Amino acid sequence: MKISARNQLKGVIVEVTKGATTSHVRIDIGGSIMTASITNEAVDELGLAVGGEAYAVVKASDVMVAVD
Amino acid sequence: MKISARNQLKGVIVEVTKGATTSHVRIDIGGSIMTASITNEAVDELGLAVGGEAYAVVKASDVMVAVD
Amino acid sequence: MKISARNQLKGVIVEVTKGATTSHVRIDIGGSIMTASITNEAVDELGLAVGGEAYAVVKASDVMVAVD
Amino acid sequence: MKISARNQLKGVIVEVTKGATTSHVRIDIGGSIMTASITNEAVDELGLAVGGEAYAVVKASDVMVAVD
Amino acid sequence: MKISARNQLKGVIVEVTKGATTSHVRIDIGGSIMTASITNEAVDELGLAVGGEAYAVVKASDVMVAVD
Amino acid sequence: MKISARNQLKGVIVEVTKGATTSHVRIDIGGSIMTASITNEAVDELGLAVGGEAYAVVKASDVMVAVD
Repeated sequence: MKISARNQLKGVIVEVTKGATTSHVRIDIGGSIMTASITNEAVDELGLAVGGEAYAVVKASDVMVAVD
Repeated sequence: MKISARNQLKGVIVEVTKGATTSHVRIDIGGSIMTASITNEAVDELGLAVGGEAYAVVKASDVMVAVD
Repeated sequence: MKISARNQLKGVIVEVTKGATTSHVRIDIGGSIMTASITNEAVDELGLAVGGEAYAVVKASDVMVAVD
Repeated sequence: MKISARNQLKGVIVEVTKGATTSHVRIDIGGSIMTASITNEAVDELGLAVGGEAYAVVKASDVMVAVD
Repeated sequence: MKISARNQLKGVIVEVTKGATTSHVRIDIGGSIMTASITNEAVDELGLAVGGEAYAVVKASDVMVAVD
Repeated sequence: MKISARNQLKGVIVEVTKGATTSHVRIDIGGSIMTASITNEAVDELGLAVGGEAYAVVKASDVMVAVD
């Protein structure tokens, strides 16, 4: 499947924390860490686990820009 | 200002494309490109221009995870 | 690629309207129309055109619920 | 109340799962299931329960498009 | 229609700027201005115009918190 | 840090409710209450507590408009 989301950054999962319905997944993208808040279901269905390769995917309209 | 968004990735602006009301800003984050779709107003107010340092900021609930 | 987004609804593209930087794509999902606002770039890269099969993809945290 | 969100799909609630602060609500839209991740508060306030009619509401800028 | 979005702030429209496909609508909420980026279609369908009463509606998962 | 998000409304925190991974923070903006759903981590890192000053920050593309 190819998706329209402009940002698809490949990395390695470094942490998976499950909550009651929502999990936090951390992916190391060449040294930068991206945190994703997704459903527990998605974690199970995709078999996400520490050490696995994964993409952080973000729609362009969800990215903000900041300056110091 | 410190913001709750979990993802604040520092990089360098490599492209700014203005539309009628919406601009696309591309930021090089250590080799990965992040694309942000923001208002023209924000581009002007923050003085965003190619070559400038900037952060791509994303709320954790807007990050998805994908696997091959 | 498999993605964590809980909502991946298959349908047929019935309209593509390009703006300056942002396009609107309408997909018929078994009689219901889903409208997506995505970048012109994504439209070109995925080759989206009327009559083509496509999925409307939505993260669960972006879905609200309403009642009459 | 009429809302600007382009996607307002009518269906029937088939599942409500409450977490600590966040609930998952599944709505059957003519055979397709939409999953919404909303606050427990909203579930209570709107009286959402299995079998009830409800709309899945999504802003166009939160819809992505994918192709096989 | 009652919607699950936790934030529904009533105010008066003070500006409507149409782009090619996307409009910016500004609403004065008791002195604070909220800016919404919505489709031109929605502006037309809801008859949004300066001076009209309107609500700015935001899902709780789209609100961030910042401190100085 | 200056951020592109168009909506940065200053107020006072009136409630912080922690869940398993996700917290709800309520901010009083001149009489209107904004509810934010953010990670527990962000609450800790920013030291958010009832009575503290804080901004509710929302990207324009996440604001919808409704009329009665």
